[in-house]
Amino acid sequence: MQILPLFFISCLLLSSSSSSHAAVQDFCVGDLTAPQGPAGYSCKNPSIVTVNDFVYSALGIAGNTSNLIKAAVTPAFAAQFPGVNGLGISSARIDLAPGGVVPFHTHPGGSEILIVLQGTITAGFVSSANTVYFKTLKVADIMVFPQGLLHFQVNAGNTVATAYVSFSSSSPGLQLLDYALFGNNIPTELIAATTFLDSAQIKKLKAVLGGTG
Amino acid sequence: MQILPLFFISCLLLSSSSSSHAAVQDFCVGDLTAPQGPAGYSCKNPSIVTVNDFVYSALGIAGNTSNLIKAAVTPAFAAQFPGVNGLGISSARIDLAPGGVVPFHTHPGGSEILIVLQGTITAGFVSSANTVYFKTLKVADIMVFPQGLLHFQVNAGNTVATAYVSFSSSSPGLQLLDYALFGNNIPTELIAATTFLDSAQIKKLKAVLGGTG
Amino acid sequence: MQILPLFFISCLLLSSSSSSHAAVQDFCVGDLTAPQGPAGYSCKNPSIVTVNDFVYSALGIAGNTSNLIKAAVTPAFAAQFPGVNGLGISSARIDLAPGGVVPFHTHPGGSEILIVLQGTITAGFVSSANTVYFKTLKVADIMVFPQGLLHFQVNAGNTVATAYVSFSSSSPGLQLLDYALFGNNIPTELIAATTFLDSAQIKKLKAVLGGTG
Amino acid sequence: MQILPLFFISCLLLSSSSSSHAAVQDFCVGDLTAPQGPAGYSCKNPSIVTVNDFVYSALGIAGNTSNLIKAAVTPAFAAQFPGVNGLGISSARIDLAPGGVVPFHTHPGGSEILIVLQGTITAGFVSSANTVYFKTLKVADIMVFPQGLLHFQVNAGNTVATAYVSFSSSSPGLQLLDYALFGNNIPTELIAATTFLDSAQIKKLKAVLGGTG
Amino acid sequence: MQILPLFFISCLLLSSSSSSHAAVQDFCVGDLTAPQGPAGYSCKNPSIVTVNDFVYSALGIAGNTSNLIKAAVTPAFAAQFPGVNGLGISSARIDLAPGGVVPFHTHPGGSEILIVLQGTITAGFVSSANTVYFKTLKVADIMVFPQGLLHFQVNAGNTVATAYVSFSSSSPGLQLLDYALFGNNIPTELIAATTFLDSAQIKKLKAVLGGTG
Amino acid sequence: MQILPLFFISCLLLSSSSSSHAAVQDFCVGDLTAPQGPAGYSCKNPSIVTVNDFVYSALGIAGNTSNLIKAAVTPAFAAQFPGVNGLGISSARIDLAPGGVVPFHTHPGGSEILIVLQGTITAGFVSSANTVYFKTLKVADIMVFPQGLLHFQVNAGNTVATAYVSFSSSSPGLQLLDYALFGNNIPTELIAATTFLDSAQIKKLKAVLGGTG
Repeated sequence: MQILPLFFISCLLLSSSSSSHAAVQDFCVGDLTAPQGPAGYSCKNPSIVTVNDFVYSALGIAGNTSNLIKAAVTPAFAAQFPGVNGLGISSARIDLAPGGVVPFHTHPGGSEILIVLQGTITAGFVSSANTVYFKTLKVADIMVFPQGLLHFQVNAGNTVATAYVSFSSSSPGLQLLDYALFGNNIPTELIAATTFLDSAQIKKLKAVLGGTG
Repeated sequence: MQILPLFFISCLLLSSSSSSHAAVQDFCVGDLTAPQGPAGYSCKNPSIVTVNDFVYSALGIAGNTSNLIKAAVTPAFAAQFPGVNGLGISSARIDLAPGGVVPFHTHPGGSEILIVLQGTITAGFVSSANTVYFKTLKVADIMVFPQGLLHFQVNAGNTVATAYVSFSSSSPGLQLLDYALFGNNIPTELIAATTFLDSAQIKKLKAVLGGTG
Repeated sequence: MQILPLFFISCLLLSSSSSSHAAVQDFCVGDLTAPQGPAGYSCKNPSIVTVNDFVYSALGIAGNTSNLIKAAVTPAFAAQFPGVNGLGISSARIDLAPGGVVPFHTHPGGSEILIVLQGTITAGFVSSANTVYFKTLKVADIMVFPQGLLHFQVNAGNTVATAYVSFSSSSPGLQLLDYALFGNNIPTELIAATTFLDSAQIKKLKAVLGGTG
Repeated sequence: MQILPLFFISCLLLSSSSSSHAAVQDFCVGDLTAPQGPAGYSCKNPSIVTVNDFVYSALGIAGNTSNLIKAAVTPAFAAQFPGVNGLGISSARIDLAPGGVVPFHTHPGGSEILIVLQGTITAGFVSSANTVYFKTLKVADIMVFPQGLLHFQVNAGNTVATAYVSFSSSSPGLQLLDYALFGNNIPTELIAATTFLDSAQIKKLKAVLGGTG
Repeated sequence: MQILPLFFISCLLLSSSSSSHAAVQDFCVGDLTAPQGPAGYSCKNPSIVTVNDFVYSALGIAGNTSNLIKAAVTPAFAAQFPGVNGLGISSARIDLAPGGVVPFHTHPGGSEILIVLQGTITAGFVSSANTVYFKTLKVADIMVFPQGLLHFQVNAGNTVATAYVSFSSSSPGLQLLDYALFGNNIPTELIAATTFLDSAQIKKLKAVLGGTG
Repeated sequence: MQILPLFFISCLLLSSSSSSHAAVQDFCVGDLTAPQGPAGYSCKNPSIVTVNDFVYSALGIAGNTSNLIKAAVTPAFAAQFPGVNGLGISSARIDLAPGGVVPFHTHPGGSEILIVLQGTITAGFVSSANTVYFKTLKVADIMVFPQGLLHFQVNAGNTVATAYVSFSSSSPGLQLLDYALFGNNIPTELIAATTFLDSAQIKKLKAVLGGTG
């Protein structure tokens, strides 16, 4: 078979459009400075996209666990890692010093899958039927947390534990229960009425977490 | 347990991003002046969003039913109530004077659920198999109308009737059959050919509804 | 124009299929006894579907508010009202006696829109950025609560208050914070570690809400 | 490079699962005899799927246009062509004898794209804003009709016209306006009230289209 | 029945919004010069949309098949035909001279349905289970290709063959295997390692398809 | 505040339904023996779901890399790990001996995010515009691969490399290029015509990969 030059492709991708990149929407690297819509960030011009838009190295650095919870969460959501914008996936790193805890929280926008990289972690979630599903996970165990349900991760050992988590959304969100309740200006009485917690308990945690009122 | 200051959160939400609101897409209050895309309006800057963006009071005012159909529909779609933009939900109020009718119409973009607040309403829809499902509803009855199907609501009593409806889209659309057919410039012969209606009937309704041709 | 009988439709809808109902999927009334999948319940055979599958009257009955929270929530989700199955919408009724409260909760699967039918209600939600958005709503005010975020409703007056809510899912789920934390067998120490609450507080609420451990 | 036997693949696809087809969901050929859910038909066992499940030849046969509308629509939806089940696409053939008309109708579940294969066709749709968009199309012109909007196709020439249409859903549905209004048992007065049509006109069309009441 | 002027509609569509077009999102004709997001192009202002935005005539022109593959593909995706933006559908035309081939390719963003308009075409796809499904199609046969799977079309006769294809996305994308492998600067050794192809074979095809390295 | 027993919850979750689990669809653990639909497997009865349905330990075991590609992929898709069914997420483990390669492949149903756990890996993908994006990744680097695009991973060092990948689908599928082309019974001439590869090259790889024809 004799092989001749092809003109097929340029014809295909450029016909009727002066900018070839417009022909495709394989990806939509987020332009954090442009308008955002319900589906995510506007797309960066594909002509200036490079492989570095699809690679993120910040999860290689352990988070600072010198804090109350002895833990850190380092997100790689669309806001930090714009390459995932619109692709329905994102990640984060969890560092747990001995005694470290990622307290009860939810991701309103996505389900999560966790893999233990180091140490042992007790992780669990609570269903709408109020059943708790929790287990102590060892290295390489994976656990899935359905979208929107309260869940937690606790270092179950005496050494540092780390985990890597992925989400079914490029912007899954994160609502930490304690901060939602005690880290803002909801009046104490309103919290008491809507949680059954004692006012003293609420004020104690507001003091810790920076809440007022 | 000794409680220490937490630096966890600011680290979590601000890392790699100078504007913390960019980290989350819990909501996307519509900016009606910015570009609109297939998924809805661009998002208003979260830093200027207040609770008033999520509350809408116009449904408290009865619509003006001094018209042919003795009825009024007051929408709270994303265009009127930008807080619902991107959230997959919206609402409207229906007022029906005695004899009032919301004529046959469809919502191309969403299913509808109706609750009767006052009076009695005969409501129904027609399926693709041409079966009609209709019933006279009393106060607090709810009825669901599947997406895109022709449906109607008629005051079934001698007093004012009101209903509140919700949709599975923030912009469900509304196509009123009579206006689609008789309220524009489709030529009479074309309408006759595509509906089997008599020309005299078509011209009579064009005169009422402002159509030409 | 002479008008002749049409055979067009039966031809159209029945060709290649012995059961005409199979030709259409306008709706999928849930068959609660058949297998359930990620998208919802299996569909009831359309040939036995009637208008009563699309109408639900149970929201006309006030919920029993003789309980701790002086409140009741009566759902009309797909499990109670199978007509909404697969249509991306559902509803519920909220009754609040004086002093009544729907405590902090989330709907993992959908956004919510609330309308006040009677009385005054203070309602609010907390965003992922820990900002609280709350306001006292009067009759006919509507408020939207984005998917998955913690929110609450409190009777703000001295009389009975009622509200009607709709969701952007036929099975939005409901996770009540207190029941998730204190109404099951999560060990007290684990709750303490993951919430910062004092053990005494936890045990007090476990006793109230039926939790063990 | 020396090339050795590979055992990689069987390991990959079969691990933890006794039936390899279960590992993939590339397609879901509809089993019309099994339960149907909101997302479509149950999948036929992949082990008995052949290329014939993905090919359909019935659109090669001209529909019978010896009827009132001098037209025929031959669908290739999931109910007729189960290979498209779950793939978000389907097709149909339109035959228009001289004078033939596909009267006003909607597809509640999908957008449509039409290509003229023979003859000339005047096609149009009406938007929610009641604007009509219509044009006479020649062979190879394509036109798109947004989901759920009323539209029609009319033979614009003196010869047979044919078109091929595709939909953005494997079960887009089809609601023909005249049949929805006049082809069932909706009482004449109710139709009159909800359409503004004269009773005589309604009864005339009920007689033609097989409606009662 | 006396018929009076209606004020219903303007009230309905304009309330709370100064621009009526904002009330509806029936369609979103792409503005190729405005920001693009994950869901597609920004919408052209509806006030300047005409029927010509929904009609596209370029598929009436046979593609130039004077090239290696003796074939041409003429797309009508959102980038060429902005009327389909956001509607989940698009089209293309395939021209195959005798001996013509559309080589192995995928559409990452959508399923495809093909109809043969002229000639005979052997078409096929390969599933994730590596089963090949292929058949020689005659005029009016349709075949569906599930999203993302490798597939091809070959002229099976001695005359020109043409096909018209539709996609379940307004921007389905197109990845031609040979161009992906041999039409860019991936180093030959890397291609050899990741395809098992011989280096000589790779270099031969790089020379043909314009690749370097 | 006096605290009384609550009856609120049981009322809430059980009303109108004899099986409380039907009230919620937080998750849908796949029942691999029941019908499968376009959205995934049927749900296992929630009453027999335990935490073990949400935890999977098989990724802790290194895959066998004693094969041609010196690599192994161990999936945790819905077929292997039914807990992810319907949750839009899944995972896999990649083992690469020195010289190991995961050859060019696609996932038709989802985007992928990869994290390097050990060693160094050169990974890349090709866009629809035929641009290649590739980079050598070190431990803890993450890289995203958009849905449906051809990509590969190669051990870039002299030691074992491992990676953990997640997908935006519970059944993303996997199509390995070489197996799709050479591991089945597509006739050699047809492959040659649709890939431009030489017949000798094709036959050589068919012999290796078990293909016939």
